[in-house]
Amino acid sequence: QSNVTVYGIVDLGYSFRDADGQSNRNAIDSGISSGSRLGFRGTEDLGNGLNVKFVLEQGIKPDTGESDQSGRTFGRASWVSLAGAFGEVRAGRQNALGYDWFAGGVTPWGTNYLQANPKTIFGYDNVAERVDNAVFYYSPSFSGFQGAIGYARNGNGNETAGNENDTAVVSAALRYRNGPLLAVLTYDQKDVADSNTTVNRDDTRNIAIGATYDFGALKAHFGYGQLKNRGFKKDADNENAWLVGLTVPVSTAGKLMATYQRVNDARNMNEYGRKFDDNRSGFAVVYDHGLSKRTSLYAYASQYANVVLDKSGSSDKLGDATELALGVRHSF
Amino acid sequence: QSNVTVYGIVDLGYSFRDADGQSNRNAIDSGISSGSRLGFRGTEDLGNGLNVKFVLEQGIKPDTGESDQSGRTFGRASWVSLAGAFGEVRAGRQNALGYDWFAGGVTPWGTNYLQANPKTIFGYDNVAERVDNAVFYYSPSFSGFQGAIGYARNGNGNETAGNENDTAVVSAALRYRNGPLLAVLTYDQKDVADSNTTVNRDDTRNIAIGATYDFGALKAHFGYGQLKNRGFKKDADNENAWLVGLTVPVSTAGKLMATYQRVNDARNMNEYGRKFDDNRSGFAVVYDHGLSKRTSLYAYASQYANVVLDKSGSSDKLGDATELALGVRHSF
Amino acid sequence: QSNVTVYGIVDLGYSFRDADGQSNRNAIDSGISSGSRLGFRGTEDLGNGLNVKFVLEQGIKPDTGESDQSGRTFGRASWVSLAGAFGEVRAGRQNALGYDWFAGGVTPWGTNYLQANPKTIFGYDNVAERVDNAVFYYSPSFSGFQGAIGYARNGNGNETAGNENDTAVVSAALRYRNGPLLAVLTYDQKDVADSNTTVNRDDTRNIAIGATYDFGALKAHFGYGQLKNRGFKKDADNENAWLVGLTVPVSTAGKLMATYQRVNDARNMNEYGRKFDDNRSGFAVVYDHGLSKRTSLYAYASQYANVVLDKSGSSDKLGDATELALGVRHSF
Repeated sequence: QSNVTVYGIVDLGYSFRDADGQSNRNAIDSGISSGSRLGFRGTEDLGNGLNVKFVLEQGIKPDTGESDQSGRTFGRASWVSLAGAFGEVRAGRQNALGYDWFAGGVTPWGTNYLQANPKTIFGYDNVAERVDNAVFYYSPSFSGFQGAIGYARNGNGNETAGNENDTAVVSAALRYRNGPLLAVLTYDQKDVADSNTTVNRDDTRNIAIGATYDFGALKAHFGYGQLKNRGFKKDADNENAWLVGLTVPVSTAGKLMATYQRVNDARNMNEYGRKFDDNRSGFAVVYDHGLSKRTSLYAYASQYANVVLDKSGSSDKLGDATELALGVRHSF
Repeated sequence: QSNVTVYGIVDLGYSFRDADGQSNRNAIDSGISSGSRLGFRGTEDLGNGLNVKFVLEQGIKPDTGESDQSGRTFGRASWVSLAGAFGEVRAGRQNALGYDWFAGGVTPWGTNYLQANPKTIFGYDNVAERVDNAVFYYSPSFSGFQGAIGYARNGNGNETAGNENDTAVVSAALRYRNGPLLAVLTYDQKDVADSNTTVNRDDTRNIAIGATYDFGALKAHFGYGQLKNRGFKKDADNENAWLVGLTVPVSTAGKLMATYQRVNDARNMNEYGRKFDDNRSGFAVVYDHGLSKRTSLYAYASQYANVVLDKSGSSDKLGDATELALGVRHSF
Repeated sequence: QSNVTVYGIVDLGYSFRDADGQSNRNAIDSGISSGSRLGFRGTEDLGNGLNVKFVLEQGIKPDTGESDQSGRTFGRASWVSLAGAFGEVRAGRQNALGYDWFAGGVTPWGTNYLQANPKTIFGYDNVAERVDNAVFYYSPSFSGFQGAIGYARNGNGNETAGNENDTAVVSAALRYRNGPLLAVLTYDQKDVADSNTTVNRDDTRNIAIGATYDFGALKAHFGYGQLKNRGFKKDADNENAWLVGLTVPVSTAGKLMATYQRVNDARNMNEYGRKFDDNRSGFAVVYDHGLSKRTSLYAYASQYANVVLDKSGSSDKLGDATELALGVRHSF
């Protein structure tokens, strides 16, 4: 049937990790350079410049055959939209804008590559990645400018009666794309549930600004973000994160990418009074070699300081970690 | 591959509910006007008028990306059939006939629209909706008449050795379709498991009769059903449910639908000795506007008395509820 | 999109079982003659004789609409491969070689037909069927000879840091195919996890040799296998299993198949000191009638002695069992 396109990515590789005080890990892992997925999408032309689109996209882990996103069937995306001259309105489970336009769009490799994932550094795991029950509006592009704004009464799981147990999500962004320049400004907010009456709780907020410029011989990446009230803790230190990156085409098929990222992660900051020289920071290098437009081999290396080694309730154990990976990414 | 057709429906909308003594609920919900689904089906021509068909249909909830039917992979349907001049024999998980031909076929909007769902009013949630391990026979059509009958040793879950823990399901129906008239008679039965030796237990039975007549300017809908022994309780009051409905085309793209339904729901009847003027009853109105053959916008409003507000073990809390919804349904 | 082929099998039938001291079981079951499945696969030609392939294959149970393999999304297979003149390298969840080339390839009906499944007789449920996190190399064919070898750091589930809780899997095989003759030699091994320091534990190993010869009027099947250290128990008796089988084409559409299998199953051997005349053994007959290349009807009967009737912790209850089945298998 021509109404549906089946598409996806299978990304599998060998992954090595050596972290402070831990045994090394050797593994075949999924989703190192790109989240493995199987998707179904379609577009219907309604006439008068109006379109309906839908996406049903399942995150998968082909190393073990399981679903990603904790087993959610269409954990990556499931939405329907109406699009026209007025822009596009999407309803359903979908990406928040900071996660998609900033972390996914401004950095050299989007929300990928293990500990070098900008998602973690910029705190999108704490605000909003993918949002349930969401309605987003995307404006048309005006001389390179595009805006978008979205809202969900509950960002994770079905809405409750009274909605007082829901954690609402607000997401807004502005993007400028013109020739070699891409610039974005994003704002994401996750509200404290009304039922959560603990004092010193406040909405978690994330604001980020980033840009890329393509000089031809190389492309430069820059990003800055600030996360407030991590985990709704009003007295948590603000986290200031930044990234610089480079993408260098080294042949018709190969490109070299690198980033340096730094953030004063507030996860344990207040409990332990760690100084700002305990920042999480590190660099990563990726070489991506295209065997075709749809298939690439990649090699990755990174070294980070003060990453989370162990999630142990109130206080996470931090330490340095080195990661290496080698893999293949096939799109279909 | 031409052997498989991928198809489905994404139905998402805004839903509001105001019920007695409860906080209002505001939500983006899936499946208001039609169960969202992703399906795979095919037909093979074996020659001599013989066909093999299969359907694998997954219920989905695109508001959260989860699977419907409590996470069953192909929770809506998964069967294979042999069809020919003799009719069609289907094996696998499939619809019971009262649920499909009566509630799904005679009422204006099938088994949809929240509290106005005929499925609930006519008690199909208590007998059989979709039946596991079932074999159904559908006769060919003789001058408008078609019959069907089905049986499952266990209607929900894998069969056990000895089958004494199984709840068998029997389903039978007659349908007449000729020009403007559609009439159906359906019978569904769920047997008490042989292992259930509690006294005063008996098979739950559901019989229903319904018809629609298309006058052109409007289509009239009528249905009557009787449910015996709700939840296998032999001393439960019989439930007598009826529905009247209208479908009125108001433009080439738009149609207005309305129903009034009434049932003496026996859920708490005996425990609380509620009178028959405590009947569950209500009306609902739907406006459906087709943007194309595959895509519609819809608006829904309903007011019901004595719906189940809270499932609390032995006694459900009942009350009045108002519902509004606005959504989009896209078929692919 | 031409990049993806959607394919699968729906296999449903009536199944009867009469076992010693148990109630009979009557059921509609999935996967009697072939595991029901829904798959997505594709191949990309990279030029220079190089190909990329992927397979995502979900095991399904259309009798109840559930996923097979304990609910794993792509429980049957999920891998990506690079293939060329050098052979093929596959990464992801995939078949072990004894399970695939021996039990699946040399026996008349592969790893199917309930208690007559060679998988159980030859102990592949105890070593490796499908292997997570695996990398396999398949050689090209040299005058009919092909070799393959694979390894997984952890055969079931994600790898752990230090990998000391992982159960590694090694699989290797040689196959000869030439005209009427097929012969295979397979070796599979599941290692004791490094964290398992119980004494008298050792790697479980399975070695098998088998052949088929097609005389035209009939095809003869032979297999012999030895399983060591069932369940890592070093002092478990070796299990010696063998199979003889026949495939006889009885018409253009119909073929008759039969096997006799025998094994001294070591499951309870040591605990109960049962003699070797307590061997599990039995015969099975299948008639398969093709309605087309893609659709068959089948009938099956088998009688086995000392099959596992009840898994009850340390000691399984054994007894004789008779099985009958009648079903349909449709490929798409």
